[in-house]
Amino acid sequence: MANLRSIETPALLLDRARMDRNILRMQSQVDALGCRLRPHVKTSKSWPVVQAQRTAGAASITVSTLKEAEQFFAHGERDILYAVALAPNKIAHALELRARGCDLTVIVDSVASATAIAVACAAAGASLPTLIEVDSDGHRSGVRPGDPVLLEIGHALHAAGSLAGVMTHAGGSYDLDTPEALRAMATQERDAVLACAAALRAAGLPCERVSVGSTPTALSATGLDGVTEVRAGVYVFFDLVMAGIGVCGQQDIALSVLTSVIGHQPAKGWIIVDAGWMAMSRDRGTAKQTVDHGYGAVCAVDGEPEPALWMGAANQEHGIVSMRDGSCPDDLVQRYPIGTLLRVQPNHACATAAQYDAYRVVEGDAIIDTWPRFSGW
Amino acid sequence: MANLRSIETPALLLDRARMDRNILRMQSQVDALGCRLRPHVKTSKSWPVVQAQRTAGAASITVSTLKEAEQFFAHGERDILYAVALAPNKIAHALELRARGCDLTVIVDSVASATAIAVACAAAGASLPTLIEVDSDGHRSGVRPGDPVLLEIGHALHAAGSLAGVMTHAGGSYDLDTPEALRAMATQERDAVLACAAALRAAGLPCERVSVGSTPTALSATGLDGVTEVRAGVYVFFDLVMAGIGVCGQQDIALSVLTSVIGHQPAKGWIIVDAGWMAMSRDRGTAKQTVDHGYGAVCAVDGEPEPALWMGAANQEHGIVSMRDGSCPDDLVQRYPIGTLLRVQPNHACATAAQYDAYRVVEGDAIIDTWPRFSGW
Repeated sequence: MANLRSIETPALLLDRARMDRNILRMQSQVDALGCRLRPHVKTSKSWPVVQAQRTAGAASITVSTLKEAEQFFAHGERDILYAVALAPNKIAHALELRARGCDLTVIVDSVASATAIAVACAAAGASLPTLIEVDSDGHRSGVRPGDPVLLEIGHALHAAGSLAGVMTHAGGSYDLDTPEALRAMATQERDAVLACAAALRAAGLPCERVSVGSTPTALSATGLDGVTEVRAGVYVFFDLVMAGIGVCGQQDIALSVLTSVIGHQPAKGWIIVDAGWMAMSRDRGTAKQTVDHGYGAVCAVDGEPEPALWMGAANQEHGIVSMRDGSCPDDLVQRYPIGTLLRVQPNHACATAAQYDAYRVVEGDAIIDTWPRFSGW
Repeated sequence: MANLRSIETPALLLDRARMDRNILRMQSQVDALGCRLRPHVKTSKSWPVVQAQRTAGAASITVSTLKEAEQFFAHGERDILYAVALAPNKIAHALELRARGCDLTVIVDSVASATAIAVACAAAGASLPTLIEVDSDGHRSGVRPGDPVLLEIGHALHAAGSLAGVMTHAGGSYDLDTPEALRAMATQERDAVLACAAALRAAGLPCERVSVGSTPTALSATGLDGVTEVRAGVYVFFDLVMAGIGVCGQQDIALSVLTSVIGHQPAKGWIIVDAGWMAMSRDRGTAKQTVDHGYGAVCAVDGEPEPALWMGAANQEHGIVSMRDGSCPDDLVQRYPIGTLLRVQPNHACATAAQYDAYRVVEGDAIIDTWPRFSGW
């Protein structure tokens, strides 16, 4: 059987046991809240991962691209939420997916988009279930609770037989790092979307679905009455940003990049490895957190963190690892000779995984499977 | 025929005419210097692009992964330089490529790596042509001119019948932005590698090949006597980092990402587009240059820059475009309504292209071809 010493580097490793624990943790949490879990599969873009989530109890899936919708529909997923405001040039594709039997839902946050959907639905003699995106934290898109445009959008969609409910994503939770702040953000996320659901219903409009979610708020929520489903993505693998927020530990991170030492600059204290930013991604999401992990947290080949090391710089195919304290140990080359294998945990699992076309599934030192993944649109 | 208004966004556009001009410019420059051009194909990872470079006069290719070597060898390329210090776990693969008829050359910068190659060559009864990497500017890997380890490596490789020459890459040129500094760096790059070639020859060792290159130094060199080949990669597309260095203008950049406006936050002056960091990459290479282009330079659909706009923030599938001066124009939604198409030029072409599996080749508004590209290792 293949093992970590028999493959070429860099390679993307997925610790199956950690992933399974992460899946069970989120499923139990959302079950306890009385909601359905709709994992965001943009993190893995891999069918075996999604299968594991569904087997553990996930009700359906969320996608970030129509390519994900196509790929997972081909694997038998029907109930799919495309959670990026629909561009006009994707309406025909969305309707065509529905015509083929995919129960696709889309989102919008403007009258113009709702009207474009209504026009396309009328022309096709079809409907396109749509959630209105709510801005619960000011971080990106959506209608603010209380904004009268909510009802305008609602009426436009309802007239087209396409109003399915409301949704929000408290991406602002990524900037927090205390349990109290995360709990408060989960409450804010819930209350924003419930307020919009109530406003729609008070205007005589239907609002069957009420969808919230981000990994930090999903794991911090204490009560979601009135919410029908929770979306979360990165929890399946976790990463250093999530560890910095405090919703997991480094020992929960299921992804790592296997890399080899290919050179040294002893006078500078540099260990050169064959995982550069192409292997790690350019994501520097921990740069603004309490612990900046550079391009990723360096670990020994067995996965044990080596906090004295850090990958502070990267070129396309070269990572530069050095001592975090800036020292230049005399025995650097002896401690990390050419060919030494290291594992580097990612800042952001979605970004690092996107650099690869497969996961090497590991159990200890053994590679027990290879799971393909896709990218692109 | 497909055009920019008939495809889904985001999409990676390649302006064929600009690419052809860029290829001719570099080929003419290297021809005039009396060297062979060995383009670094890590930028495109696409056979039609490499074909265009070879047709214009490129002698051979440079790769950053053995996957690139495999892919282009399958297309008939034989003379291939793998320009990342060879990890021990790739030696067998390199020898196997040679056994299949690929004239692969590798690089090392340590006695340990040279010895590993010698041992593997002896076991296989083969040779593995190897260049010694020279550190011409202190930016990453390589042996410093004057370091006696050069001869140790040279003797180890020569004993294994595998010493082919020396190479360097003045990646430090990316931090410069005046013609004078770039010319000086090109001279420094050349002199470093010539000094090492002379040292090897003075010790009775062969040094047939003397290889230099980076896009900025290749375009700035005024004399390369003694150098046999020039490597350069990103010139084929150019990008905003190269424009910031001063070796091209924005009007030379052949790559752009086509994106749609999918929402607004008028009170904040935000235009939300469907090209986030997954579509642009997380590369922020212009952040430390004179003009910081955020996640890319926003242009109108016809490619004309809109310098008043900038993509200052990005989430996975959302880009946040705003006025560079921070203003919130009253007519923002009217000027950039839902569905408006924009084009965004990349900070770093290698990083942005890696997020896609194909180039949409454009001539004006028309999509005249689709060229596949690959990623990974």
